[in-house]
Amino acid sequence: MAEKPVRRRPGGRTARTRESVLRATADVLLNEGYEQLTIARIAAAAQVAETTVYRRWPSKAHLAADALAELAGAENPIPDTGTLEGDLRALLTQVVGLVERPEVRRVIRAVVSLAADDDEVVRAKEAFWAGRFAGAAAIVERAVERGELPADSDPYEVIEDLAALVYFRLLVTGLPLDGRVVDRSVRLVLSRQDGQGKGEQS
Amino acid sequence: MAEKPVRRRPGGRTARTRESVLRATADVLLNEGYEQLTIARIAAAAQVAETTVYRRWPSKAHLAADALAELAGAENPIPDTGTLEGDLRALLTQVVGLVERPEVRRVIRAVVSLAADDDEVVRAKEAFWAGRFAGAAAIVERAVERGELPADSDPYEVIEDLAALVYFRLLVTGLPLDGRVVDRSVRLVLSRQDGQGKGEQS
Repeated sequence: MAEKPVRRRPGGRTARTRESVLRATADVLLNEGYEQLTIARIAAAAQVAETTVYRRWPSKAHLAADALAELAGAENPIPDTGTLEGDLRALLTQVVGLVERPEVRRVIRAVVSLAADDDEVVRAKEAFWAGRFAGAAAIVERAVERGELPADSDPYEVIEDLAALVYFRLLVTGLPLDGRVVDRSVRLVLSRQDGQGKGEQS
Repeated sequence: MAEKPVRRRPGGRTARTRESVLRATADVLLNEGYEQLTIARIAAAAQVAETTVYRRWPSKAHLAADALAELAGAENPIPDTGTLEGDLRALLTQVVGLVERPEVRRVIRAVVSLAADDDEVVRAKEAFWAGRFAGAAAIVERAVERGELPADSDPYEVIEDLAALVYFRLLVTGLPLDGRVVDRSVRLVLSRQDGQGKGEQS
């Protein structure tokens, strides 16, 4: 289990391996769907040994989650517009843009349909969302610093409240994700914070 | 295409056929999952001709949606507690109780994973949700009568705001559906209405 220094050098072989594995995974996911993803295939496409893939990603669910997080992060830097409302609106507009791509929808549907009693899947989902929410937490922290949100605001809850309606429409009712949905969700989060700040009045 | 009067008599043969077809469908859905559902199998189980099933339900997606609506409606009368907050809390507690059953989760996951570009599936989903929202609209109407909500409240939006977080956790992040989620969702809806009522202040 000795760790060789070269494996940790930033931008070195390990970083390149990670990049090519995740790129190959994203290609399969977006073009063919989750069902077609296998570790063997990704190892071949990225020209690495299967054991190299398994060392970092214990299951194809982990691999898919990591590839999606990379994709979502690369295309969508966390917005910093100067106001909470602006940041929330920009972030949710990014999310809508991403999930409106048919190939992304297909992946999300496939991931949703995976059994929740599969521990690997549950852990991979948690890791994916932990990464997404960590980025979004910066929005809440800046809003707290500007005095737009109370100091004890929970970033996770703010982002959940913001994103829930978009995913409800996307996955459950199938209603359209237009600009009105973004407006409504942003107002929902802002009015809740407003209501909480008023304490006994509500 | 002549309609025989006997087919419309309430509680008559048509009603019995509908009941036995939907019961057989719910049995297959809950015990084996959506994949195992076929019209041929349901017709055999309900002891009717396949054409009889197709006459009312053009696809297995329609059949599944109708069976789920029946199941959800039969077990969950729309609450009437005397207050908007009480009604919202009771309704969402029902929803959580329903979706926490592993067999119901399995069906929901299967339905979510169906391609959105299949028109039959889209129409079946719309029919299912139209039925669910129609029932819940009564809650909003009574709240308007009591002066708890503005007269122009959109029942569909109120119920969407109420249910979105539960489905987001159920389908997307996999976080638990505890009592706190019900509390948060109810407060979210109430604070939004509160914020809207205040107009320019916000």
